[in-house]
Amino acid sequence: MSMLRAGIVGATGAVGQKFIELLRGHPWFKITALVASDRSVGRKYRDAVNWIGAAEIPASVASMEVSSFSNDLPCDVVFSGLHASVADHAEPKLAKAGYPVISNAKSFRMHPDVPLLIPEINPDHTFLIKNQDWQSAGYIVTNPNCSTVGLTCALKPLHDRFGLEAVQVTTMQALSGAGYPGVSSLDALANVVPFIGGEEDKLVHEPNKLLGTITGGTLHPQSIRISAQCNRVPVLEGHLECISVKLSTSVSRGEVHDAFESFVSPIKDLCLPTEPEKLLHVFEDERFPQPRRHSDLGGGMTVSIGRIRPCEVLDYKFVALSHNTIRGAAGGAVLNAELLIKQGLLKARDA
Amino acid sequence: MSMLRAGIVGATGAVGQKFIELLRGHPWFKITALVASDRSVGRKYRDAVNWIGAAEIPASVASMEVSSFSNDLPCDVVFSGLHASVADHAEPKLAKAGYPVISNAKSFRMHPDVPLLIPEINPDHTFLIKNQDWQSAGYIVTNPNCSTVGLTCALKPLHDRFGLEAVQVTTMQALSGAGYPGVSSLDALANVVPFIGGEEDKLVHEPNKLLGTITGGTLHPQSIRISAQCNRVPVLEGHLECISVKLSTSVSRGEVHDAFESFVSPIKDLCLPTEPEKLLHVFEDERFPQPRRHSDLGGGMTVSIGRIRPCEVLDYKFVALSHNTIRGAAGGAVLNAELLIKQGLLKARDA
Amino acid sequence: MSMLRAGIVGATGAVGQKFIELLRGHPWFKITALVASDRSVGRKYRDAVNWIGAAEIPASVASMEVSSFSNDLPCDVVFSGLHASVADHAEPKLAKAGYPVISNAKSFRMHPDVPLLIPEINPDHTFLIKNQDWQSAGYIVTNPNCSTVGLTCALKPLHDRFGLEAVQVTTMQALSGAGYPGVSSLDALANVVPFIGGEEDKLVHEPNKLLGTITGGTLHPQSIRISAQCNRVPVLEGHLECISVKLSTSVSRGEVHDAFESFVSPIKDLCLPTEPEKLLHVFEDERFPQPRRHSDLGGGMTVSIGRIRPCEVLDYKFVALSHNTIRGAAGGAVLNAELLIKQGLLKARDA
Amino acid sequence: MSMLRAGIVGATGAVGQKFIELLRGHPWFKITALVASDRSVGRKYRDAVNWIGAAEIPASVASMEVSSFSNDLPCDVVFSGLHASVADHAEPKLAKAGYPVISNAKSFRMHPDVPLLIPEINPDHTFLIKNQDWQSAGYIVTNPNCSTVGLTCALKPLHDRFGLEAVQVTTMQALSGAGYPGVSSLDALANVVPFIGGEEDKLVHEPNKLLGTITGGTLHPQSIRISAQCNRVPVLEGHLECISVKLSTSVSRGEVHDAFESFVSPIKDLCLPTEPEKLLHVFEDERFPQPRRHSDLGGGMTVSIGRIRPCEVLDYKFVALSHNTIRGAAGGAVLNAELLIKQGLLKARDA
Repeated sequence: MSMLRAGIVGATGAVGQKFIELLRGHPWFKITALVASDRSVGRKYRDAVNWIGAAEIPASVASMEVSSFSNDLPCDVVFSGLHASVADHAEPKLAKAGYPVISNAKSFRMHPDVPLLIPEINPDHTFLIKNQDWQSAGYIVTNPNCSTVGLTCALKPLHDRFGLEAVQVTTMQALSGAGYPGVSSLDALANVVPFIGGEEDKLVHEPNKLLGTITGGTLHPQSIRISAQCNRVPVLEGHLECISVKLSTSVSRGEVHDAFESFVSPIKDLCLPTEPEKLLHVFEDERFPQPRRHSDLGGGMTVSIGRIRPCEVLDYKFVALSHNTIRGAAGGAVLNAELLIKQGLLKARDA
Repeated sequence: MSMLRAGIVGATGAVGQKFIELLRGHPWFKITALVASDRSVGRKYRDAVNWIGAAEIPASVASMEVSSFSNDLPCDVVFSGLHASVADHAEPKLAKAGYPVISNAKSFRMHPDVPLLIPEINPDHTFLIKNQDWQSAGYIVTNPNCSTVGLTCALKPLHDRFGLEAVQVTTMQALSGAGYPGVSSLDALANVVPFIGGEEDKLVHEPNKLLGTITGGTLHPQSIRISAQCNRVPVLEGHLECISVKLSTSVSRGEVHDAFESFVSPIKDLCLPTEPEKLLHVFEDERFPQPRRHSDLGGGMTVSIGRIRPCEVLDYKFVALSHNTIRGAAGGAVLNAELLIKQGLLKARDA
Repeated sequence: MSMLRAGIVGATGAVGQKFIELLRGHPWFKITALVASDRSVGRKYRDAVNWIGAAEIPASVASMEVSSFSNDLPCDVVFSGLHASVADHAEPKLAKAGYPVISNAKSFRMHPDVPLLIPEINPDHTFLIKNQDWQSAGYIVTNPNCSTVGLTCALKPLHDRFGLEAVQVTTMQALSGAGYPGVSSLDALANVVPFIGGEEDKLVHEPNKLLGTITGGTLHPQSIRISAQCNRVPVLEGHLECISVKLSTSVSRGEVHDAFESFVSPIKDLCLPTEPEKLLHVFEDERFPQPRRHSDLGGGMTVSIGRIRPCEVLDYKFVALSHNTIRGAAGGAVLNAELLIKQGLLKARDA
Repeated sequence: MSMLRAGIVGATGAVGQKFIELLRGHPWFKITALVASDRSVGRKYRDAVNWIGAAEIPASVASMEVSSFSNDLPCDVVFSGLHASVADHAEPKLAKAGYPVISNAKSFRMHPDVPLLIPEINPDHTFLIKNQDWQSAGYIVTNPNCSTVGLTCALKPLHDRFGLEAVQVTTMQALSGAGYPGVSSLDALANVVPFIGGEEDKLVHEPNKLLGTITGGTLHPQSIRISAQCNRVPVLEGHLECISVKLSTSVSRGEVHDAFESFVSPIKDLCLPTEPEKLLHVFEDERFPQPRRHSDLGGGMTVSIGRIRPCEVLDYKFVALSHNTIRGAAGGAVLNAELLIKQGLLKARDA
């Protein structure tokens, strides 16, 4: 397979930068277009960006020129790190212009014909693409909100084995989830902010779409009752979630533990480059997982589980941790694109 | 009323230091004895202590000599900031020697004859003192665990008005709750530790004792089902708690709000010096309360409530914040002692 | 003396908020005007401001209406928390309109006719006011940059007694010095930024003006060589500075210590409400002063000194700490206004 | 070359853990012995250690049994992460028993016959080994204190080209430099501690030894006047230093910049696995280097330089950053061992 040409829109933002980091040395994609807002257009990427990463900008990207939105981007696929306010308009335009758009924006996540995709959870949802009316040309595929991913990956094996009736989740979310500059240090340092605009709603709805089933060509979401309380904590990367679940079946702690431990990704055999060896890692040490220490497991793509124990109110409780800018954003999107290639839905466009 | 003489045991520890801070300028108590472990005995307090407070040691205390445990402490009441491992033995000895012991330790909190006391919540529980078999001489009164206080103060008006069936609570607790040196900075900085040893059990049992009723001379605890998930976050002071409740009655959000807003302390008329003007402060701004900004409300004795809203799984959810080393430890204990004075249970001992 | 009417311009900004906090209950000033930018004009202060303080907005101020800039503000004195970009134009206008402007902005600090004032250091510099050509009406008086204050207060006794030839200073400055939202939490958390735009220049020039002498009606600044390296550290309040000095005289460590210890404010007898009991507090404990623990000394108006010891390169080195938003901004400005009252330069304007 | 067998003493401590991390997959060393204190002896490493790293314990090491100190350790070289109090006695014993001891402890750093070694700076100092009177059997080689390394690497090119007369350095040091549990979170969070016991003395003496010359078989240290002020800041990894230097020659800023930029490691041709591509990386962006973002450059072995500019008091000032637990501790020690292999001073011991 020859390398696919990847364009990144919103290339100077926090998510755009993460795309560039994660595509460095990727075996299937090479970056061929960087798109950003007017004030960046025409400048070298290194001059246009306020690079916030730890390492330096990959040399090949640093000297690329930033281009403007157009219907003629030199790429086979577009990774979108746009804010929703821009994505609302820009992503359909790109799809209509023939580009597969792999989006991290929230704009179309709940659209009935747009897959909200976690490859290990619902790879069959890409079936929805054929319903997209701009599909003759391109399409949009989205990854979930950063706090949804860890929750849904943790719920999946419980839902499959035991049935899920209700979920309580309290999140402690990293600062990087708010982008850059994002949260003021005067709000963040030595503090917790018990509110993140719009976040709790996403946690109520997105997991039900992700765990939904495709029948008769349309998606039927689940109707698990989910209640979320979202907090911003002074952590850099990694959303930690305290979860309590009510199951449809009476099961032992051992069975819950085993459901997590023995979960096997349905796409394991595709050997996607960004898929971690294990989707779920279960810690026995009751002090773990911790965001600073364990978010990077599996290259930031593994979701960690810990402290599985009975709940006095629902059935079982536990904690889950996932890397919010890798698994929860750019890494999840790249994995989506890899799945689409293997499913034959993403390929080189005719020159 | 002449000033009562206060002794502080565990005087060099974090809680002992807080007692000293809070008794500075107190209208009813003067510090007359400082008791600490052997290696401090005989030294001036300023030389024995590693003072961790922001202000300086009150001058009158700085030059006092630290004394050893004895049955002959020159004081009318003992405030105990001891660790449970020492309190287990030391507090009964002090009680038998005739001292009222106002304890912050967990050792006797769940003892059926020892009041677990929050003056605004269960002032009548001091009735239990007369059951204490060392009572002929002295007695023990305890305040709850730091994470219990905020929860119980928030639950009280709901329990009184609507009845409580179940409670889910996820805590985000300040570092100072672990004492000094307590949590290593390498565990704390930019991190969350999703485990605090023994904490979750206290949250299950202590509120049920605090909300219990005295009938026939004994305490009948409630049997509300409580499930707790406790986390240590990089915050200095203030435990923030995300709470969800199932009520016995179907009520509107406005009624819940009103229950908090209109709660009146049953001991308001006693005008205790450490009692805040309002036990509960309800924030309307959905970003509040925040530990760094609001823990000090009411001199650290007010519990803040925010984000009252329906819960998709139980009935209502909200956040509560309380200052863990003032309301949740030394301040709570001082308020207990003030109540005992007004109830005639604490007075000058015969010389 | 009847209360003077105080107007605050830039009332919704971080410095403006601090003015409001510090003037709460002030014996000489009452707030009678709040001025902010167009989008706030006409709204109640509580609705216009994003209040970042720990306590709540003083009730009397919360319900005041925000007004626009005009030549007809109902006040006797204007406290300016404006950014320099606005102050450049607005402050001279206010002065020409007859208002004494007590400014925290950098715009006119180095103007030869504008006093750069720390009352305990150079109270005689207010003499310069009469040189101001808008003076027939009003005038401008400034306080120094937040990092200059601690340094200059520490240098003053050394300069007076021993003569100063050269100063090396490395600062570790709090986040609040950058205003709100100021530094992004992604830059601040668990990090140091070794650069603060424009800061080092201020440290080179402002102390020389502050320590200058008035002769023949004009100011003659000192020419002490000062080299500064400024860093932003994850601290909320309090600029800590590592200082090394070359003196004109050979002196012992004891003499340096004594110079700090025995420094007496030249305005002590004026009993200004905001002046701390001691300008300089010398710590003997080599771990002190620390920003989080000691910035509040003297109500945030005391400068702390510690670790006095010989320097292997210059003569002596030590650390100094000062509260950057109180002593280094709003508190310093209020103290300036208090001095001006006592000097007869600030009084009620004719109605 | 067959793999050398490496023993780690102090294997459960913070430095010991870092040795294990850095030797994972090392091409020249395999870990064959783990030595710790009595309470760990006989236990599997995973059970004996409180692993503080981000990743998990390498599987091969996790199941190794911890052994006690002896003269019969199954290894060719010993890496010592011991505290000085233990190293004082243990390291000479190991040397006498025939082991090359690659030590991170301070015990023998200033011993005239023990090399204090940074391979890129003074590789010829290993000549001193032959003076060690326990040398017939083994020997000791040390790496410098964590705060010395960055300073000395930065000074080396200036010293070589221009001559150095005096150095002022203010450090902002990471928490990990104090080991585990090290600094209490109550001292660290949102605070700076302007004191690190013993640190300033090391900065005065160690660079002079490192930059010294070997003549007549003995080491002649330099006599550069160095003054240090050391601070602990809430950063996890990376010591940032503000440095000012007085040179023997008058040079331009460009020449200083070029001295850093064009520095070539004298051991480049040895191709040591742990040597970074560049010892010194010069940043042009005045906001850089920053500890959280840039400590990991060159695998944590590169020292970053930034903000080169004239100094108003000495000649030039700049900042330097180095990773304190890699370049400044375990990584430096591993590089020392690699150099010794290439110099023929470290080889397989006879069985």
